[in-house]
Amino acid sequence: MDIVLKPIGTVKTEREEAFDDYWGSVTSTIHLDDAMFTPEVTMGLHEFSHLEVVYFFHKVVDSKVELSARHPRNNAEWPKVGIFSQRAKGRPNRLAVSVCRLLKIEGLTLTVESLDAIDGTPVIDIKPYMKEFAPRGEVYQPLWSTELMKDYFKK
Amino acid sequence: MDIVLKPIGTVKTEREEAFDDYWGSVTSTIHLDDAMFTPEVTMGLHEFSHLEVVYFFHKVVDSKVELSARHPRNNAEWPKVGIFSQRAKGRPNRLAVSVCRLLKIEGLTLTVESLDAIDGTPVIDIKPYMKEFAPRGEVYQPLWSTELMKDYFKK
Repeated sequence: MDIVLKPIGTVKTEREEAFDDYWGSVTSTIHLDDAMFTPEVTMGLHEFSHLEVVYFFHKVVDSKVELSARHPRNNAEWPKVGIFSQRAKGRPNRLAVSVCRLLKIEGLTLTVESLDAIDGTPVIDIKPYMKEFAPRGEVYQPLWSTELMKDYFKK
Repeated sequence: MDIVLKPIGTVKTEREEAFDDYWGSVTSTIHLDDAMFTPEVTMGLHEFSHLEVVYFFHKVVDSKVELSARHPRNNAEWPKVGIFSQRAKGRPNRLAVSVCRLLKIEGLTLTVESLDAIDGTPVIDIKPYMKEFAPRGEVYQPLWSTELMKDYFKK
């Protein structure tokens, strides 16, 4: 079964290439498609502090999609782990999920902080962040992932 | 631009229909497609406590996709809000993002707790949950969403 998606909008930002780190200080705008939507589609969204954005890694070519395992960021000091054990962009279906701060809504344009998407990225969905969707119970993760993420959202 | 996805696996669980609440006690298995993957694809995943699962609301028919605004759960006591201001399943592109606890990995079968997906749901992606992807800064949300979520993940 194939699932066909239509982007709901596009990201505009200064970053034209993927950088590994320092997404915390990036301000971007998400432009919802005005052929599909009216501003009603974000009515009430201003009452939420954060958004969860689903987007498409559109610059990743087929040959860069990992179907098995590799070292995160190709760093041999970190263990080789499966593609579903990491959040690398070269993954089956090439979808990203990222939480960012909502700064402003003007019509169909949303201004956000710390969205880790490059300029021109197709946006697939926007959901309001609700605390209840955070993990229930104790959270743990391996050391390599903590090291990898150290400066990712730094300002 | 159309984006074409191929499910990476399927959810098996006792719940055959969407219930509003009490997903906390639901145990499900995610069966990764053995025609696409070997067990290498989840190597190292056991070191994470939680997964972020992207899945497709496959039972939602076109006529139930809201493109504008409506009352969450059609409850007129809650304000009418845009479809991108709520997490309802009848949404453009019909994708869900949900965090669940990882209980067990056996080959290409993952056992998870509190995944809010019904039996037969196509899975699009699995990402390890990393604390650094949680919202940065103060989180707030409107009262209606707190009320709506009160029993959602309850056991």
